[in-house]
Amino acid sequence: MGRLAPARSVVTKPLDGEEFRAMGHQMVDFIADYFRDLETYPVQSQVQPGYLKKLLPESAPQDQDSLEDIFYDMHSKIFPGITHWQSPSFFAYYPSQTSTASILGEMLSASLSVVGFSWITSPAATELEIIVMDWLAKMLQLPSEFLSTGNGGGVIQGTACEAILVVMLAARKRAIARAAAEQGISEAEALGKLTVYTSDQAHACVNKASQLAGIATKNLRLIHADASTNYAVCADKVAKCVAADKAAGLIPFFLVGVIGTTSSAAVDPLSDLGDIAQEHSLWYHIDGAYAGNVCICPEYRPLLNGVEKADSFDMNLHKWFLTNFDCSCLWVKDRSPLLAALTTNPEYLRNKQSEANAVVDFKDWQIPLSRRFRALKLWMVLRMHGSDFLQTYLRSHCEQAKHFETLVRADSRFELMSQRIFSLVCFRVKPAAGDKDNGYTLNKKLVEALNTGGDIMLTHTTLEGVYTIRFAIGAARTEMRHIVAAWKEIQRQTSKLLKC
Amino acid sequence: MGRLAPARSVVTKPLDGEEFRAMGHQMVDFIADYFRDLETYPVQSQVQPGYLKKLLPESAPQDQDSLEDIFYDMHSKIFPGITHWQSPSFFAYYPSQTSTASILGEMLSASLSVVGFSWITSPAATELEIIVMDWLAKMLQLPSEFLSTGNGGGVIQGTACEAILVVMLAARKRAIARAAAEQGISEAEALGKLTVYTSDQAHACVNKASQLAGIATKNLRLIHADASTNYAVCADKVAKCVAADKAAGLIPFFLVGVIGTTSSAAVDPLSDLGDIAQEHSLWYHIDGAYAGNVCICPEYRPLLNGVEKADSFDMNLHKWFLTNFDCSCLWVKDRSPLLAALTTNPEYLRNKQSEANAVVDFKDWQIPLSRRFRALKLWMVLRMHGSDFLQTYLRSHCEQAKHFETLVRADSRFELMSQRIFSLVCFRVKPAAGDKDNGYTLNKKLVEALNTGGDIMLTHTTLEGVYTIRFAIGAARTEMRHIVAAWKEIQRQTSKLLKC
Repeated sequence: MGRLAPARSVVTKPLDGEEFRAMGHQMVDFIADYFRDLETYPVQSQVQPGYLKKLLPESAPQDQDSLEDIFYDMHSKIFPGITHWQSPSFFAYYPSQTSTASILGEMLSASLSVVGFSWITSPAATELEIIVMDWLAKMLQLPSEFLSTGNGGGVIQGTACEAILVVMLAARKRAIARAAAEQGISEAEALGKLTVYTSDQAHACVNKASQLAGIATKNLRLIHADASTNYAVCADKVAKCVAADKAAGLIPFFLVGVIGTTSSAAVDPLSDLGDIAQEHSLWYHIDGAYAGNVCICPEYRPLLNGVEKADSFDMNLHKWFLTNFDCSCLWVKDRSPLLAALTTNPEYLRNKQSEANAVVDFKDWQIPLSRRFRALKLWMVLRMHGSDFLQTYLRSHCEQAKHFETLVRADSRFELMSQRIFSLVCFRVKPAAGDKDNGYTLNKKLVEALNTGGDIMLTHTTLEGVYTIRFAIGAARTEMRHIVAAWKEIQRQTSKLLKC
Repeated sequence: MGRLAPARSVVTKPLDGEEFRAMGHQMVDFIADYFRDLETYPVQSQVQPGYLKKLLPESAPQDQDSLEDIFYDMHSKIFPGITHWQSPSFFAYYPSQTSTASILGEMLSASLSVVGFSWITSPAATELEIIVMDWLAKMLQLPSEFLSTGNGGGVIQGTACEAILVVMLAARKRAIARAAAEQGISEAEALGKLTVYTSDQAHACVNKASQLAGIATKNLRLIHADASTNYAVCADKVAKCVAADKAAGLIPFFLVGVIGTTSSAAVDPLSDLGDIAQEHSLWYHIDGAYAGNVCICPEYRPLLNGVEKADSFDMNLHKWFLTNFDCSCLWVKDRSPLLAALTTNPEYLRNKQSEANAVVDFKDWQIPLSRRFRALKLWMVLRMHGSDFLQTYLRSHCEQAKHFETLVRADSRFELMSQRIFSLVCFRVKPAAGDKDNGYTLNKKLVEALNTGGDIMLTHTTLEGVYTIRFAIGAARTEMRHIVAAWKEIQRQTSKLLKC
């Protein structure tokens, strides 16, 4: 008796229900096994640059390969190059979550594969997005102006970077028109005078959006925030800077306040910043990419006070809301400046419902024309978990961070580098007296040792020039035991280093 | 004996392997049933604006719902609002394809949920993207400069809109620096003088990108193309326009040539445009969003000649390559202007491999920071089909279009509105002699009757002001029998209309 030929699942038609059924089941098992075995992989990939080129052919295959071939290559070639963001011991950057509900939503969305640029191209895609964005706005207790029932509304963007860019473009158009009307200056001249304000702790995307929007590099004000305010920007400094720019003939037009800065999750004085924005007619955007999410918990909601003075607010559900990347939720209080800046209306997209102004066409709320049906996964996440569970879930990460903080405090070799507010802890190993680089080499070595160890992954930042380790909690599967184990590993590697 | 309680699949942990396994299988069956029943749905959704708000609650649920609840609502509430882009009788816009291979890829990508902004955040995501983009470049016979082994390389963007925007921003920075060096003018002054060139048949995204990039509206040259060139732009007109602008002290900097325009799939004289670009040092971008794909077939490749003179080339695999949205493939000949315009390097993202310049960080090739692992689905599409099948597949749609064209020609009530090159046929019902609006009302009514009939879906454009029906072939499941049936339905509805 000969050997059994290996199973070969091959596509014979590009989109056949029964072929999809068979291979879809195989893929589900493959993924479920991955989740089962997740903790056996090193969190950070340990490969060297260029590793994959050596493993794959120079050209695409002429003939077809089977799903089994692909699974084999996934395990042997791709997985070694994967950094496992879903590992419960992933503490780097900010998290990028996924969940059963969200993956199911993505499966459905990829299968329907509708492109919802205009309402007519799939009414459910637009309408469900409006509905779930209103749901979420209510969970966050956003002022009613941000709901679709007022002049504003919510829209799903890919990232917080895109969200900031689209509102900056809307603000730019408004500011240039105003300058033309009030000062009679040209578009180009006005653009050269526009100034942007945010903290030097804000995400680099404010910088990038300003560059892309054509704001002169010298007109971006990154106002220094330091430990005296726990890295929140000082509203007085912002006010003085705006006033000085105005006096110098510049045109202040855009202010970003942050709830949960990138380095240390600081919270800017959102309400005070709102006052400045109102006094000087600036567009006021609040970036809550990471920490905005937790404001669905009533005890955290006061931190978002001031949002009622904002023109726009954004948060990334993919960071902390069990909804996989990409899903960045942007609300605006008034949608008309957005539409004025971003609307196109070519003949080939015209249709009765849009012409009658009876519908929302989300193409005019974003940079690209086309868009995926992302509301589907958000709807599934909200329904399959419910708001009570989501609150409990978000709190659990903050509790874990609180415990981690206690552990750091209890070991005198370490120090905390900022006051923790959410699920991020900033700390470092204290340098020895007279350490020539103030702990830079020591802590950098520690991070490298931890990441190449493979048990956990974390990353660093600098706070006032000092190398600082970030411990960002928020993977969907992280439990208290992973925090405890991570701390033990940090202690172990530190002991090893300090003995060198 | 009491009734059996209905099955309730609920999530108890957000990301559990066994829960995912069970519900993933349920979802696969749900999707497979959808594909099985696809032809029973009306292609275009027939709902009225606001229909869904009446069906869903005002707020998110506090408690969790089961997957069965969601499936029930999908069928009863969401599906009526879906326009079925995967229907074999979807002939509207340009197609947005998906396939078994691509959905499997999306499932895996959503599950790994890695965010590949820097190489280190998941080396395989970056390296596989480089490899498959090189594979694809070879299938297209792009010049070797566009490969990663030279100074250029490929990168996956979300859409052709984003692709045009990023290269325009790169070109803008280069042009402004050049103007400063050669003419000693300021950034703002230079920006005010920059001019962009393309055909009035190009996609509206050139217009939008120009607006976003801060190019003055009056400095966008949409050069008229008409039936005399089958709606390809005339290179002489472009050359004259560039020369006139230069003489007037403006700064021409960006030219877009199109293979497969939006309205009628016209092909610009790409090589002649390339000469103009080289003579005047313009950034030359070729937009092959739809028709670029078919250039993997040797018999269509000559249409892309001239690409060797381009700075960048882009095509949307989601339009015609069995890869679901979003997957727009952009190649540049020289990556340095892109990096100069889009690079950010905040402390919290610094890492050894990036600092050593040993790796590619795709965050600096795009607008947002974060990015999905889209190369996975492309890799799976290429492998599970192989290049031979993909060529056959693309040709089949062109053959179908050719047959449709024959059918149109054979019925004297109709006329073709442009010469067909790919899988799009432009036609209309001939108006009666003396028709006061030159067939506008008649043909518009026909499109509406067809779309509300539900058997097929198509859309319109105008060509030189004349209302034109577009029949765009390219759904993954479309076969010759669907073309024949669609034509019968068009004839039936036309007979009905003409008898009124």
